[in-house]
Amino acid sequence: MSSSQPLRGVVPPVCTPLDAAGDVDTASLARLVDHLVGGGVHGLFALGSSSEVAFLTDRQRAVALETVVEAAAGRVPVLAGVIDMTTPRVVEHARAARALGADGLVATAPFYARTHPREIARHFRTVRDRADLPLYAYDLPVSVHSKLPTALVRELAEDGTLAGLKDSSGDEGSLRRLIVELGGRHGRADGPAPAFSILTGSELTVDAALLAGADGVVPGLGNVDPAGYVRLYDAVRGGDLDSAVKEQERLVELFGLVEAGPDSEMGRNSSAIGAFKHALRLLGVFTHGTTAAPQIQLGDESVAHVEQHLRTAGLLPTR
Amino acid sequence: MSSSQPLRGVVPPVCTPLDAAGDVDTASLARLVDHLVGGGVHGLFALGSSSEVAFLTDRQRAVALETVVEAAAGRVPVLAGVIDMTTPRVVEHARAARALGADGLVATAPFYARTHPREIARHFRTVRDRADLPLYAYDLPVSVHSKLPTALVRELAEDGTLAGLKDSSGDEGSLRRLIVELGGRHGRADGPAPAFSILTGSELTVDAALLAGADGVVPGLGNVDPAGYVRLYDAVRGGDLDSAVKEQERLVELFGLVEAGPDSEMGRNSSAIGAFKHALRLLGVFTHGTTAAPQIQLGDESVAHVEQHLRTAGLLPTR
Amino acid sequence: MSSSQPLRGVVPPVCTPLDAAGDVDTASLARLVDHLVGGGVHGLFALGSSSEVAFLTDRQRAVALETVVEAAAGRVPVLAGVIDMTTPRVVEHARAARALGADGLVATAPFYARTHPREIARHFRTVRDRADLPLYAYDLPVSVHSKLPTALVRELAEDGTLAGLKDSSGDEGSLRRLIVELGGRHGRADGPAPAFSILTGSELTVDAALLAGADGVVPGLGNVDPAGYVRLYDAVRGGDLDSAVKEQERLVELFGLVEAGPDSEMGRNSSAIGAFKHALRLLGVFTHGTTAAPQIQLGDESVAHVEQHLRTAGLLPTR
Amino acid sequence: MSSSQPLRGVVPPVCTPLDAAGDVDTASLARLVDHLVGGGVHGLFALGSSSEVAFLTDRQRAVALETVVEAAAGRVPVLAGVIDMTTPRVVEHARAARALGADGLVATAPFYARTHPREIARHFRTVRDRADLPLYAYDLPVSVHSKLPTALVRELAEDGTLAGLKDSSGDEGSLRRLIVELGGRHGRADGPAPAFSILTGSELTVDAALLAGADGVVPGLGNVDPAGYVRLYDAVRGGDLDSAVKEQERLVELFGLVEAGPDSEMGRNSSAIGAFKHALRLLGVFTHGTTAAPQIQLGDESVAHVEQHLRTAGLLPTR
Repeated sequence: MSSSQPLRGVVPPVCTPLDAAGDVDTASLARLVDHLVGGGVHGLFALGSSSEVAFLTDRQRAVALETVVEAAAGRVPVLAGVIDMTTPRVVEHARAARALGADGLVATAPFYARTHPREIARHFRTVRDRADLPLYAYDLPVSVHSKLPTALVRELAEDGTLAGLKDSSGDEGSLRRLIVELGGRHGRADGPAPAFSILTGSELTVDAALLAGADGVVPGLGNVDPAGYVRLYDAVRGGDLDSAVKEQERLVELFGLVEAGPDSEMGRNSSAIGAFKHALRLLGVFTHGTTAAPQIQLGDESVAHVEQHLRTAGLLPTR
Repeated sequence: MSSSQPLRGVVPPVCTPLDAAGDVDTASLARLVDHLVGGGVHGLFALGSSSEVAFLTDRQRAVALETVVEAAAGRVPVLAGVIDMTTPRVVEHARAARALGADGLVATAPFYARTHPREIARHFRTVRDRADLPLYAYDLPVSVHSKLPTALVRELAEDGTLAGLKDSSGDEGSLRRLIVELGGRHGRADGPAPAFSILTGSELTVDAALLAGADGVVPGLGNVDPAGYVRLYDAVRGGDLDSAVKEQERLVELFGLVEAGPDSEMGRNSSAIGAFKHALRLLGVFTHGTTAAPQIQLGDESVAHVEQHLRTAGLLPTR
Repeated sequence: MSSSQPLRGVVPPVCTPLDAAGDVDTASLARLVDHLVGGGVHGLFALGSSSEVAFLTDRQRAVALETVVEAAAGRVPVLAGVIDMTTPRVVEHARAARALGADGLVATAPFYARTHPREIARHFRTVRDRADLPLYAYDLPVSVHSKLPTALVRELAEDGTLAGLKDSSGDEGSLRRLIVELGGRHGRADGPAPAFSILTGSELTVDAALLAGADGVVPGLGNVDPAGYVRLYDAVRGGDLDSAVKEQERLVELFGLVEAGPDSEMGRNSSAIGAFKHALRLLGVFTHGTTAAPQIQLGDESVAHVEQHLRTAGLLPTR
Repeated sequence: MSSSQPLRGVVPPVCTPLDAAGDVDTASLARLVDHLVGGGVHGLFALGSSSEVAFLTDRQRAVALETVVEAAAGRVPVLAGVIDMTTPRVVEHARAARALGADGLVATAPFYARTHPREIARHFRTVRDRADLPLYAYDLPVSVHSKLPTALVRELAEDGTLAGLKDSSGDEGSLRRLIVELGGRHGRADGPAPAFSILTGSELTVDAALLAGADGVVPGLGNVDPAGYVRLYDAVRGGDLDSAVKEQERLVELFGLVEAGPDSEMGRNSSAIGAFKHALRLLGVFTHGTTAAPQIQLGDESVAHVEQHLRTAGLLPTR
C-alpha cells in the first residue's frame, strides 16, 4: 500500500477472539483472517474498536496484530489501530505497529483530556512524523467525545498528514461536505486531488456512502458476512444500485443480531461485540464467543437470537 | 391530502419574512409561496424550525400560517408545525392550525421537561386524537434533546397515530433500520404496509435518503433553490443517480452560504436562517433579511458571502 | 419588593394542583399558598418548572398565577416564571404576569433554538425593557441545554438588567466564582455592590450554598416541608451550622420520596412532581396528586413510598 | 495507610514537571513533593489528571511515581492513578504501581468503550482483587463521560471493594445523598460504618464539602498553594467556618490564574495545567512550565496573568 494508491473497498475491523483465560486465541484469529480474505475483502483493520482494542493490554495488542499480519501474508494490506489517550502514548503504539508489519495506522483524536482543534492537528502531525506510515484519522465521537471538524480533516488531507479518514461519526452531512470540498465523487477519483481514502464506518448506509463518493467501508458486521459487503461494494461500483440497496437491506436485517434482550445488564458495546463473536463461533470460525473484562457475556437467549438472525440471512442452514 | 395518499416529494419548511418592526411581512411570504410552488415543490411546511416558529408569538404564527394557506390556494398541501413544550400546549396550536386550514400537523416530542418514551407515545396519541388531522412526528434532537426511538416510531406508524416522520436527527443508520422494518424501499411503496411518509430533513444527503427509500425531503435550503431540489428528486425517481449526485453536490456547495464569519457572535441558528433570508432578499422574493429577536443580524461580510454563493450556483447572474 | 431590597430566604416554586379534568384546582392551590406562607417562607415562585409551567396552557398559567397572587395577599412577594422558547414569546408572558400582579419575573435563556451568549444577553435585556419588573435569570441547563456563563450573569448583574439569579445548574464551583466576583459572602451584603439576589435551586446542599454567600433557596421539596427549609435557613443565618447540617440531612432523606420504582415507565420529571403532589395530597393540602399530560401517573407502590418518607420525616404520624 | 485508617485531609494531585525534551524532570518533581509536604498536606495523589497521566507513557508514569514515592519517604501516603480505558489495562497499571510502592490506587470507570453500571462494578471488583491495595473510585465525568451512580458507589463501599471516592463530578447533590446514605456527617465518622474516605475534587467549594461531611480534598490548585488548602481544612475541622470561607474565597480568586486569554487556541486542560506549572516555575519549584504533547504552551500574556494572580494572592512579593 503506497500513498499514491489509496485504500478502497471493504476493510473490516478484525474481531479479536479470546480463549477461556482471556488471552488472544491466535488459531481462531488466523481462521477469521482467512474467512475475511476468502470473502473478498480489500484490506483488514486490526486493533479497531470492534477488535476490543480498548480492552487489550499492550502485549495482547502485539499478539493480535502479529497474528493478523502473518495470516494476511500480504494478500491484503493491514491497518493497525493505535488507540490511546494522547500523542506520546499513541506514538508508542505506532512504533510497535510499524515494527510488527502494519501497512498503515489508524488514530483517533486525543480523548480523556480535552483538547482544542489546533492541538488535535498537532496530534496527528506528530504521530505521522514519528511513525512514518500512512495515517488514517478515526472519527469516532461516541468514544472520543469530540467530532473531527471537516475543515481540520481537509487541512490534514491537503498537507499530506493524513492518508485517509475512517468516519464513524454517523454525521453523513459533514462527510458529504468533505467529499464535495475534496472534489466531489468524480473529481476526487479522476482529478489531481491528493490521494485520500474516505472509508465509512456506518455499516447500515454503505450504498448511500459509496454513491456519494466514499472509497470504502469498515463494517464491524463484515466480520460475520464479508462476502455480503463485498457484493454490496461491487454492485455500487458496477452501477447496479438496485442490487446494492437489496444487499444493504439484507445486511440491515442481519445487523439486528446485535440487539441483546432489553433487560440485559450489558453495555451496547458488549452486546454488539458479543453478538459478532458468537456469530463467528456459530459459523465455525471462532472457538469461543468470549468478550474481554469487564464486559458481561451474552446469555443463552441472546445467543439464540444471534443464531436465528444467521439462519434468516442464509449464513446458517435453515432448520 | 388523505391518509391513503402519503406525502411525497420536496416539502420545504417555509421561511417567515419579517418587516423592520419584527412583524410578519405577508406580502413577502406570499411571494415566497409562489417562488416555491413555481419551483415545483410538492408541499409546504409552515411554522417549522426554519420558519423561526420558536420565535413567533401565537398571533404571528396564525398570520404566517394563514398567509401560506391562502397563497398556496390548494395547489399543494400545507403542513403546519405545532411546536411547543408539552401536550396541552401543542394541542392548542394543533386546533388553531386546523382552524386555519392546515392539511397536516408536525409535532416534536416534548421538550424542556424530560419525558419517558412511554410518555412521548402518549403525547403523539393525544395530539392526534384531539386535533383530527394527519400527524407527522418531527425528530429533531438538536432542539428537543431526545431522539425518537425507532421502535416507538414504528409502533405509532403501525397503529395509525402517525402519518409520517420528518427526520432531522441526522442518524441515517436508524432511519435505514426504520425503512427496512417498514418493508424496505420496494416493500413500503408496493405492499400492504400502512401509508407512512418518511421525509428527511438532511438536506445534504437527499440523493442517499431517496435511494434508501425515503419518500421526500424537507430542505431549509429549498427556500432558496426549490427547483434544484425538485430536479434532484426527479432524477432519483427517474433512476438517473448520476444526475442526482451532481445536483446534490451543487446544493452542498450552495449550502456553504450559511457559514457566517468565524468571529461572528451569532448562534448557528441565526446565521443559517439569516443567510436563507438574505438570499431570498437578493433573489427579489423578500423585502428584508431580518431575523427575529434576540438573534443577531448578518453583517455586511456575511451578506456578501451569501451573494457570492448565489452567483456561483447560478441563482444570480455572474458579474 | 423593590430593587434596593433584594430577595432573600426560602422561595419555593409553587406546585400547580390539577383536578381530574386536568384544570387548575384553585382551591388546592390557595391552600398550598397558606401552607407555604404558614411555614414561614419569604417569597413564592409561581410558574416554575416544579409548577409544571411547561405543561400549562397560557390560560392555565394565568389562572395559577392569579390564584397565587390573590392567596399570597401581599404577605410575601410573588415571582412568576415566564418560560418560553425565545424573546418575543417570553415578552408576552412577562406582560401577562405583570398585569396579574407578579412582583418579579424569572426567565431562562432561549431554548429549542440555539443561541450565542451575545444573543442570550440581548434576550434578557429585551425582556427587562419590555416588562419593567425585576428580572431573575433562571439557569437550568437540564431543561435549556445551555449553561449561563458566569461572565454574562456578572455583566447583566452589574448593568442592572438582572435583579438576581436562580441557579439550578448544579455547578456549585461556577456559582462560587460568581459570588466571589460579586464581592464574596461579606462584601456582597455589606458593600456598595449592586443589589443582586443569588438563589440556589440545589435543594440538597442549601447549607453549603448559604455558607458560601447565597441569599436564598428555591426548593421544590419546600412545597412538602416549607418549615424545614425555613429552619435550615434560620440556622445558617444564626451561625448554627451544626443544626443547619442536621436539618439539611433530614431533608436529603425526605427527598428520597421522589424515587419512583426502578421499572416505572416515567420521566424523572414526572416522578418528582408526582411525588411532591401526592405528598401534598397525603398532607391534606391537595385534593388530587394528578400531573399534567402526557406524564404517567404515580402507581400505588410509588405513592406508598412517598407516604413512608413522610412518616419517617415526621410529617405524618407514625403508625 | 491501612483500610481501618481512612484517608483524610488535603491530598493534592501532584503535577508532573517535564524538561525541554518532554521527559519527566525528576529534580523538579522531588522539589514539588517537598513543597507539598512542607505545606502540610496529608497525602499525595500521583498520576492523576492534573499530573497529565493521560499524556505520560508507561515508562514516564513509572519514573514519576517512583520519584514521588521516594521523595515522600513515608512522610505521607501516596495514592497512584491507574488511568486507562478498561479493566485489563488498568490491572497492569495497578500491578506496576504496587511494585513501585504506592499506598493506594485511584481508578476511573472504563472509558472509550461504553459500559453498563453492572460492568463498571465488575471493573472495580476485578481491579481490587488483582492489585490488592486500597482502591479509590475516581468519578470524573468530564473525562470518562459517565457518572458513577450513587447506588453503585454505596454498594462497592459497603462490600469493601472501595476504600474511598475521589469525587470530581461537580454533582454536589449526589455527593450529599451518598454522605447521608453512609451515615451523615457525624454518623460516618463515629458509627460502625465501613471506613470509607470521601475526597472532593471540587477545589472551589471545599469549605462546603467538608461542612457536609467530606473527609478531604484533592485540589489541583493545591500544587500552587498547599498551605492555603491546609489552612482551609484546619479551619473547618476547628469549627471556624468564617475563616474557612475567607480562605476559600482567596483560593477562588487565585484559581483565576487558569484563565488563558479568550482567543488562545488551547484546550481548557492545557490552560489549567500550563498555569499550574508556570506558577510552580515562578515560585521556584519547577525548572520549566512545559506541558506534554500535543498541548499548546502558554503564551507570554497568559504567563503574566499567572504571575499577577500569584502576587495578588501573596504567593509572590508585590512589586
